[in-house]
Amino acid sequence: MTDDIRKPRLYGAIEAGGTKFICAIGDQHGNILEEARIDTRAPAETLARVLEYFAAAQSRTAQLAALGIGAFGPLDLNPASPTYGFITSTPKPGWKNTDLAGTLGRALRLPVSIDTDVNGAALGELRWGAGRALADGRSPTSLAYVTVGTGIGVGVVHHGRPVHGLMHPEIGHVSIRRHAADGSFAGTCPYHGDCLEGLASGSALMARTGRPLSHAPADDPVWAIEADYLGQLCALLVLCHSPQRILVGGGVMQDRLYAAIQARMLHALNDYVEAAQLRGADYITAPGLGAAAGIKGALLLAITVGDGLLHHGT
Amino acid sequence: MTDDIRKPRLYGAIEAGGTKFICAIGDQHGNILEEARIDTRAPAETLARVLEYFAAAQSRTAQLAALGIGAFGPLDLNPASPTYGFITSTPKPGWKNTDLAGTLGRALRLPVSIDTDVNGAALGELRWGAGRALADGRSPTSLAYVTVGTGIGVGVVHHGRPVHGLMHPEIGHVSIRRHAADGSFAGTCPYHGDCLEGLASGSALMARTGRPLSHAPADDPVWAIEADYLGQLCALLVLCHSPQRILVGGGVMQDRLYAAIQARMLHALNDYVEAAQLRGADYITAPGLGAAAGIKGALLLAITVGDGLLHHGT
Repeated sequence: MTDDIRKPRLYGAIEAGGTKFICAIGDQHGNILEEARIDTRAPAETLARVLEYFAAAQSRTAQLAALGIGAFGPLDLNPASPTYGFITSTPKPGWKNTDLAGTLGRALRLPVSIDTDVNGAALGELRWGAGRALADGRSPTSLAYVTVGTGIGVGVVHHGRPVHGLMHPEIGHVSIRRHAADGSFAGTCPYHGDCLEGLASGSALMARTGRPLSHAPADDPVWAIEADYLGQLCALLVLCHSPQRILVGGGVMQDRLYAAIQARMLHALNDYVEAAQLRGADYITAPGLGAAAGIKGALLLAITVGDGLLHHGT
Repeated sequence: MTDDIRKPRLYGAIEAGGTKFICAIGDQHGNILEEARIDTRAPAETLARVLEYFAAAQSRTAQLAALGIGAFGPLDLNPASPTYGFITSTPKPGWKNTDLAGTLGRALRLPVSIDTDVNGAALGELRWGAGRALADGRSPTSLAYVTVGTGIGVGVVHHGRPVHGLMHPEIGHVSIRRHAADGSFAGTCPYHGDCLEGLASGSALMARTGRPLSHAPADDPVWAIEADYLGQLCALLVLCHSPQRILVGGGVMQDRLYAAIQARMLHALNDYVEAAQLRGADYITAPGLGAAAGIKGALLLAITVGDGLLHHGT
């Protein structure tokens, strides 16, 4: 007990993205003590650098208790599967069928908890961020976390647990209805063309307008188009998941979008779902942890390894 | 213990629909011992007849242990809400803001567990029906139950628990993309016009073709249209919920639709989600409990009152 107070339990956390791996050491209260950025190259090279970081960190600080990974996917998250913890069918060159959790866990001899980056972020927001107020101990706790960046990812937590099943949700790739002013744009998704990600991600915005949304003039129709697409997403989340709150972040998001997204969500729902909260100023809001949602989510995955709420490999 | 063997624990179950209330007495093994059908009229009249049935049943058999209700909605399922167990914003005349669970529970002095009819059916299928094989004790257990009748309802279970949040899912009302051969049909949903229910429910089929699907000639384009819409729904369920299996039942369903729906689901996903199960013959299948899924689901709600897995009122 005395020992616990002197030396906080330390955990490794990885936010594994298509562009960079953020590696960090954190404690059980959600504090990130140190952090490093490693560019995402081929798996062997990238994972070797990740292992170097954690080996050095363990020799500097203390033995870590566990490793949490929030990763791009798709991932195999079925603990009964022989490829549990693998990145599976990603279009990212070289990364298909990469044993992410197993490789790192075996080399570092740590228990590993892995989930999608967005499921991890949703858990982190629920524990330490904009979802904290939702856990009143009586209501079912459910939260959706949306990130609109190069791609679009959505994590969902119900009853305090991330949604898993056959695999995990891939809500960024749902079909939406085309905005009338967006008629000629084919969309950028290599699988679906004009799915949500193909129409509303940062890549789609760049392909459609040649500049990021933040650089578009205030009267450019792209603002209304983007708000409509993300409003359709939020309406879909209400119909499919009924979350108590929807957090929307990522590099594409701008302050003026939130109210516009909510208006388009309400337009799409057309009063079918009667819940006063849908009209509240905090129903669709920014992540409380900001850009740290991903790495803090990965830290929480590490902290909750083996507590029965999350699956883990070894 | 001896007493338990002689007298099985009995439960009341109600499948509360817009056309009829099925009331039943069942045991802890899922057997329905007796059943009655009560036409759905105004709430006071309907609930009075429901109460008569259960009062008589209790005097004939034994004190019931609990009451389970699977109901049409929308429902307030937040146990912290003052209107928990109410039917809320239904367009059904007279039924808006009806305290379904409270009225019956107080009059019968029974603990009540209430959920949507489709969430109840999904739980029942998982315990006794076509979802039994999914619960292997290791994988996360998730199942979607779709009923295509007058309307379209979808229940979803994750980790063995029905999805609740702000309210409950209303997946029947999602937007889908219009089939090219269905261009001129406006849709029948009073809220959304051409949402899924507005285009693909039994009411929509009657409005579009003047006859039920089962009476359409084999070469009528309506078959391809219906399969496409339900295939879009299944693709959406895979992307949003990643269920291990999708059960599709209800009065509209015909045997030849299953393979066609699966083909349209795979077309919509376009290999983005790589899971061999999606191509399996049992991924999209009929409910194992058939038409009894709803009432057995309500029975299971009663059985699990107070076991910590489901919320309940008193």
